[in-house]
Amino acid sequence: MGKMCEAEAAKSGLGSGGMSWRYLFMFSIMLNLSLLFSRFTQDIKTSATGFVGSGEEQRKPDLSPLSFTDKPPACAVAKMGTNSYCSAIGVDNPVINLDHGDPTMFESFWRSMGDRGSIVISGWQLMSYFSDIGNLCWFLEPEFARQIRRLHQVVGNARSEDHHIVVGTGSTQLFQAALYALSPSDASEPTSVVSAAPFYSSYPSITDYLKSGLYKWAGDAHTFEKKGPYIELVTSPNNPDGYVRKAVINRTGGILVHDLAYYWPQYTPITSQADHDLMLFTVSKSTGHAGTRIGWALVRDKEVARRMTKFIELNTIGVSKDSQLRAAKILETVSDSCGHSDDSDHPAENFFEFGRRQMTKRWEQLRDAVVKSGMFSLPKFTNDFCNHTGQTIEPHPAFAWLKCEGGIEDCESFLRGHKILTRSGRHFGVDSTYVRISMLDRDETFNLFLERLSGIRS
Amino acid sequence: MGKMCEAEAAKSGLGSGGMSWRYLFMFSIMLNLSLLFSRFTQDIKTSATGFVGSGEEQRKPDLSPLSFTDKPPACAVAKMGTNSYCSAIGVDNPVINLDHGDPTMFESFWRSMGDRGSIVISGWQLMSYFSDIGNLCWFLEPEFARQIRRLHQVVGNARSEDHHIVVGTGSTQLFQAALYALSPSDASEPTSVVSAAPFYSSYPSITDYLKSGLYKWAGDAHTFEKKGPYIELVTSPNNPDGYVRKAVINRTGGILVHDLAYYWPQYTPITSQADHDLMLFTVSKSTGHAGTRIGWALVRDKEVARRMTKFIELNTIGVSKDSQLRAAKILETVSDSCGHSDDSDHPAENFFEFGRRQMTKRWEQLRDAVVKSGMFSLPKFTNDFCNHTGQTIEPHPAFAWLKCEGGIEDCESFLRGHKILTRSGRHFGVDSTYVRISMLDRDETFNLFLERLSGIRS
Repeated sequence: MGKMCEAEAAKSGLGSGGMSWRYLFMFSIMLNLSLLFSRFTQDIKTSATGFVGSGEEQRKPDLSPLSFTDKPPACAVAKMGTNSYCSAIGVDNPVINLDHGDPTMFESFWRSMGDRGSIVISGWQLMSYFSDIGNLCWFLEPEFARQIRRLHQVVGNARSEDHHIVVGTGSTQLFQAALYALSPSDASEPTSVVSAAPFYSSYPSITDYLKSGLYKWAGDAHTFEKKGPYIELVTSPNNPDGYVRKAVINRTGGILVHDLAYYWPQYTPITSQADHDLMLFTVSKSTGHAGTRIGWALVRDKEVARRMTKFIELNTIGVSKDSQLRAAKILETVSDSCGHSDDSDHPAENFFEFGRRQMTKRWEQLRDAVVKSGMFSLPKFTNDFCNHTGQTIEPHPAFAWLKCEGGIEDCESFLRGHKILTRSGRHFGVDSTYVRISMLDRDETFNLFLERLSGIRS
Repeated sequence: MGKMCEAEAAKSGLGSGGMSWRYLFMFSIMLNLSLLFSRFTQDIKTSATGFVGSGEEQRKPDLSPLSFTDKPPACAVAKMGTNSYCSAIGVDNPVINLDHGDPTMFESFWRSMGDRGSIVISGWQLMSYFSDIGNLCWFLEPEFARQIRRLHQVVGNARSEDHHIVVGTGSTQLFQAALYALSPSDASEPTSVVSAAPFYSSYPSITDYLKSGLYKWAGDAHTFEKKGPYIELVTSPNNPDGYVRKAVINRTGGILVHDLAYYWPQYTPITSQADHDLMLFTVSKSTGHAGTRIGWALVRDKEVARRMTKFIELNTIGVSKDSQLRAAKILETVSDSCGHSDDSDHPAENFFEFGRRQMTKRWEQLRDAVVKSGMFSLPKFTNDFCNHTGQTIEPHPAFAWLKCEGGIEDCESFLRGHKILTRSGRHFGVDSTYVRISMLDRDETFNLFLERLSGIRS
C-alpha cells in the first residue's frame, strides 16, 4: 500500500499493515472453537462414567467380568451368601439363579432415561449427620420426604397426609425398627411375631438372628394361638405368591405391620389408597434401585415413629444422605414420567407403563412355558380395576410361585438338577412342592430360563 | 479513503470500507465472552444444588432455615434425639451444642476442592443388590476397596494386605457386626462386652438396645472379673479423652476389637502401621463425611469376616452402593491431595495438612480460653514422631475432655447454665466433673464457644 494509503488506513483505525483486524478476528475464531469444544467434552464427561473432575483423568470403576457397575452379565448372579460363581459370559448351559429378586429388569428403562435420573453430589455436600433437626426423623432429607408424598399422590396407592415418614436403609431395616418400636421394652417375655404362610422367607431369620429379648418369631399366623400381645406382618401383594392379603388373626392385643413393597401398578391393580397404621415401602421393588438401600415407612402414631427413629439412630446413626437424595431424584423422575404416555416414538416414557408391559409379557411367556412343559402349575389371579391406569387389569407379581406337579416332592432340588436355582417353599413356611422364582431379572437371564423350563419333560 | 486506497485495501483483503474485520473481530469477542459466561454459570449450577438435568429446570433442595443442604447455620445443631431447635441465625446468645461430633469443620476444605470431590451417578447405575459376587463381602464395591487400601498405604496408619475388608453403614453397624461375629451362637449365656472407662458413650446402648441373647454390656474393662469369654473394645485414640490406648484385660478367652476411628494424621501422630485382628474405621471422622454413613473393617480372620458380612446381610441386605462410590471418590481425592503441600498460593491442597492446621489452632485457642477462665483443665498429651508427616507432633484429638475444677461436681449442668451443651462424663463411665466437647464443628460455632468459655469466671 502506498504511504498515502497507509496514512489513511492509520486514520481509519486499521493500524499498520491493515491486516491486524483480520488476524485478530482469526485468532478470536480459534478461541471460540476451543471454548465450544471444551464445553462439549465436559458435557460428555459429566454423564458418562460416574466420576467428574476438572480436566482430570477419569477413573473407570473396576470392570472385572462380575462387576455390575458397567456391563450387565448375560447370566444371573450366584446365590447370596455362597461362593458359587455365576457362570462366565458365553459358557454353554450356565446355572440360572432366580433365587432372589434382584430387580435388574428395570435397568433398560433407566438407561433410556439418560440424564433424567442422574444426580451430582459435590464433595462438600451432605457431610453432616443431620438432615432436618426440627423433624421427628432428624435424618430424613426433606427433599426425599417431598418426593415420597408426591409419588403416593400420583400413584394413589397410599394415603400419607396423616402419617409421619421414617426413612430406612431398605425396608428390611424398617421392619426391624417396627418390631423394636412395637415391642414393650419392659415385657416379661418377647412379643410374638407372626405372618400367614406362605410368608416372606427372611422374616424368621431377621426377627431371630440376634436372639432379641424384645421380640421373637412365632411362625404361621394361621395357626397362632399363644395368648398375649403379638405383631402380625401382612405383606400385600404377598411375597412369594403375589396374592392380595389382609390380616388373618382376629383378636385384640395385636398390632399390624403392612409390608406394601409390591403395591405398585407394574405388579398389581391399585384398587384403593392404602391407609394402615404402619406401611413399609422400598425403592428396590418400586423403581428397581436395590443397590441404593432405601425404604420408607408411613407411620400414623407419633410415638411409634419416634421409637423407629431411635432404632435407626442406634443401629446406623441415621440413613445415608447420598442415597436419600438419589432416591429423591429417582422418585421425582418416576412421578414426572407419569405425565407421559408411551408411544411408538417414545416407547419407554412412563415408568409404570414400561413395568406393566414387561411384567405382562413375562407372565404370558411363563404361562406358555409351563403349558409346554406340562410339569408345573402357577397361581391364578383375578382381574381388578386399577385406579391409577383407569383399566381393569390382571396382577403380574414380582415372583412366580411355581408348583411342581406329577408327584415331584422337592421342586427346588428337581429344578436345581436342571441348573435353575430357586427358593424352596420350605423357607416360606409351606411344603417343598412349591418354589419361588424371580420375575425381575434381566431379559437374557429370563429368556434363558423360559427356554429351559419349557424343555423340561417328565 | 480515496478510491486508490480502497482498491489497495480490497487487494489486501480488508474488504469494502476496510472496517469489516474489526467488526467481525468485535462480534467474535462478544461470542467468546458469552461462551465463557455460560461455562462459568454451568459450573456453579452443577455443584450447588445436587441436581442436574440436561437443560431442565434445577430444583433446589428444601431450604428451610434449618436445612443443611446449602447454607451452614451460624449456630450448632440441636441435640440428637430431641426436638430442641438450634437458635435461629442472628439470635443473640444462642445455645451452643457441642454434644456430638458432627464433623462439619471439614466442609471448608471440601468446598475449596470444587469439582475434585464430586460424583455423578446415572439413573441406571448401581441398581443391583450385588457388587462383587466373587468376593466374601458380596456387597463391597471393588473401587471402594481399592481406595481403602490405597489410603492406608498413603497414610501408613494400618496394614491391610492380610485383611479382608467388610464395608458397613458407618462403623456403628460394623461394631454390631463384630459383636455378632465374635459371640458364639450356641453359648449358654451372652458374651460379655467391655471397654476401659472413659469409654465411648454409645457402646452400652448399642450393645444392649435389643437385649440380645448373644452379647451383653459388662461395663468398665478395668474392673471386669467375670469368668468366661469376653470382647474388649479398644478405641485408640480414645473417645472421649484422646489418649492412645491398648487392651487392659490380660487373660485368655478374650477377643479384641480395635476402633481406630481417630487414628488419622489430623488428630494424632501416626507412630506405626496398626496391624490388629479387627480394626474399624469410618469416613465420618477421617474425611468428615458423616452423612454418607460409610465405615469399613479390616478383618484378619476369614470366618469372622464372613459372619460380619452375614450380620449386615440380615440387618440391611448390604450397604448402599451410592454411598460406597461417593466414599471411594472422597478417599481418592484425599490420597491424591497427599501428593501436594499446602502453600500460600494453595492454602488447602493437602487434606491432612489442612486438618492438622485446623486442629492445632483450635487446641491452642481452647487452652488459651481455659487459662483465661481459670475454671477448667484439659488433658496433657505427649509429642510423638509421626511417620506420615516426618515430624514430631502433638496430638490434637477430635474431642476435648474438659474437667470442671473448683469444686464443681456436675460440669455438664454448669456449662448448660452457660448455654453450652456438652456430654457428661457419666455417659462415659466416669464421674460428672468431666464433659466431652466436640472440636469438629464449624468455625462460627467453635469461635462462639471459645468466647463464651473464656468469659466464665467463678
